[in-house]
Amino acid sequence: MRPFVQRGGKATQVARRRPESGDGQVFRTLRGIGDDCAVLRVLRGHDLLVTTDFSLEGIHFRRAWHSPESVGHRCLTRGLSDIAAMGGEPLAVFLSLALPEKLQQRWVDGFVRGLLRLAKRHSVTLAGGDTAQSPEGVLADIIVVGAVPAGKAIPRSGARPGDRIYVTGRLGRSAAAVRRLYAHPHTKLAPRRYREHFFPEPRVAVGCQLRQGRIATAMIDVSDGLSTDLAHICSESGVVARINAEAIPRLRGPDGLQLALNGGDDYELLFTEPARRRVPEEIAGVPVSRIGEITRSASVVLVEGNRERPLSPGGWQHFAKPR
Amino acid sequence: MRPFVQRGGKATQVARRRPESGDGQVFRTLRGIGDDCAVLRVLRGHDLLVTTDFSLEGIHFRRAWHSPESVGHRCLTRGLSDIAAMGGEPLAVFLSLALPEKLQQRWVDGFVRGLLRLAKRHSVTLAGGDTAQSPEGVLADIIVVGAVPAGKAIPRSGARPGDRIYVTGRLGRSAAAVRRLYAHPHTKLAPRRYREHFFPEPRVAVGCQLRQGRIATAMIDVSDGLSTDLAHICSESGVVARINAEAIPRLRGPDGLQLALNGGDDYELLFTEPARRRVPEEIAGVPVSRIGEITRSASVVLVEGNRERPLSPGGWQHFAKPR
Repeated sequence: MRPFVQRGGKATQVARRRPESGDGQVFRTLRGIGDDCAVLRVLRGHDLLVTTDFSLEGIHFRRAWHSPESVGHRCLTRGLSDIAAMGGEPLAVFLSLALPEKLQQRWVDGFVRGLLRLAKRHSVTLAGGDTAQSPEGVLADIIVVGAVPAGKAIPRSGARPGDRIYVTGRLGRSAAAVRRLYAHPHTKLAPRRYREHFFPEPRVAVGCQLRQGRIATAMIDVSDGLSTDLAHICSESGVVARINAEAIPRLRGPDGLQLALNGGDDYELLFTEPARRRVPEEIAGVPVSRIGEITRSASVVLVEGNRERPLSPGGWQHFAKPR
Repeated sequence: MRPFVQRGGKATQVARRRPESGDGQVFRTLRGIGDDCAVLRVLRGHDLLVTTDFSLEGIHFRRAWHSPESVGHRCLTRGLSDIAAMGGEPLAVFLSLALPEKLQQRWVDGFVRGLLRLAKRHSVTLAGGDTAQSPEGVLADIIVVGAVPAGKAIPRSGARPGDRIYVTGRLGRSAAAVRRLYAHPHTKLAPRRYREHFFPEPRVAVGCQLRQGRIATAMIDVSDGLSTDLAHICSESGVVARINAEAIPRLRGPDGLQLALNGGDDYELLFTEPARRRVPEEIAGVPVSRIGEITRSASVVLVEGNRERPLSPGGWQHFAKPR
């Protein structure tokens, strides 16, 4: 590990953290940036969560379309959303960042600003990483370390027949922004109108509450699109599902359903609940919609009015090629 | 985190680990590849070490020069060597891997084989990661999670005036290989003749013994070259050093000293010892050489015969440009 250098030199951050969840102090960064490794201490009774996610220029973002703040924010959202999907709390972030030789320092500052702003909101420490020269484009790999009370991580594999299926927020708005970007590649979109795409909000507090309330039996984030991520839950759990198209929270218009099912890049939470718990209509300020149930049938089906059709994974395929 | 897919589908690895050091069972991977996060449990009384390191085509390796097995091995060595430099034991590995569209599966298989062979030798689990399409070249980010008894990690910052300075192995052989590669870019070098470059051995067992014997007060791996890595120890510790050129274990010939000081890419351990401990001439089968001492002078100096000269950092600058 090389120390991650911010403008103005090296930052050594040593933080104590008391998470929102009320689980007590679970974590200290004993040694942050500036040594071969970060040294973390997780207090007893907790399991550790680790996730890594690439954000690669031309694949996950384009500098012509995304501001550096948006790229930094989106980069960290990918990792935080994975921690949320396990019902965990994020604790420390590591960033491997490779930059092309000619990149302006202003861009890097904006990227770091976007990332740190989101990190601060979630009380997460940037504890280390690596810097390198990139052969081509901006390359970032975000590593988030989180914690969850021992044995309480919510897996993808816990769904059982009879469980109800829920999703947070509204699906398809980010994909709608991507479609606009492809349709008008030289027009800048206003980030404020497309917050779900440029500054998506990882559902960390929702994930924690679902874990604390013992509500969710299986959970995943909808980063690849509902059809694809539901398929992950089904295959890991060895079950299938029946989804009610009309219940999916989505954009109005003829494409709303398609964008919700296959658009992806949403960072909402998809979870199952054993039909015995009361699921609030809103958790941590985020609406929650019941969209279907886990079944014993032969395949995943989508019910639209009186028609049923098989629902195959058709989600997020990155920015590399127009869709 | 996307599941890391090996040929033939997804591998879920759940491992218990009993480290070589005799510290007892410190670690279990409760949930590996195939969920949003890996779930790890570190038993009480241990601190966690986390390190991340990029291996980027054209910067850290070239496909024309390095076999895929060598690239995989070198990629993991970078992370394991950081864990060794803290006196820690590696526990779990995460790999973010982005591949160009046209890369042959055979190359990927070789890369994974080289990485897993080294992982197996160190009883380390590949517990997760991310896969993506690369916009250009092979891009790998290796994350190694390790552990060390609480409070016992060996930092860079522990050197004090009067401490003796030691280095393991022999320096400069990897840099000699790099120089040959630049001089004869179309000739393949025999990996067996240049093992230190193509298949460097991270000094994990040495690092553990230095920690267990309470020998080392400060430690770093020599991945950037002796001059640069010594400067890191000095600046983190707020001290300077006096190095005896003749004592540096190096290649014979007129360039031996230069390669040892500034070549880098060695993955040996550089450490300080408070002049009260007996330092064996060999630790875990690796020779150990005393090369100087920490002083109270004004700057880091190199002593060659009767001459003294300041020693500035001049180490490893990657593969991007010929040196």
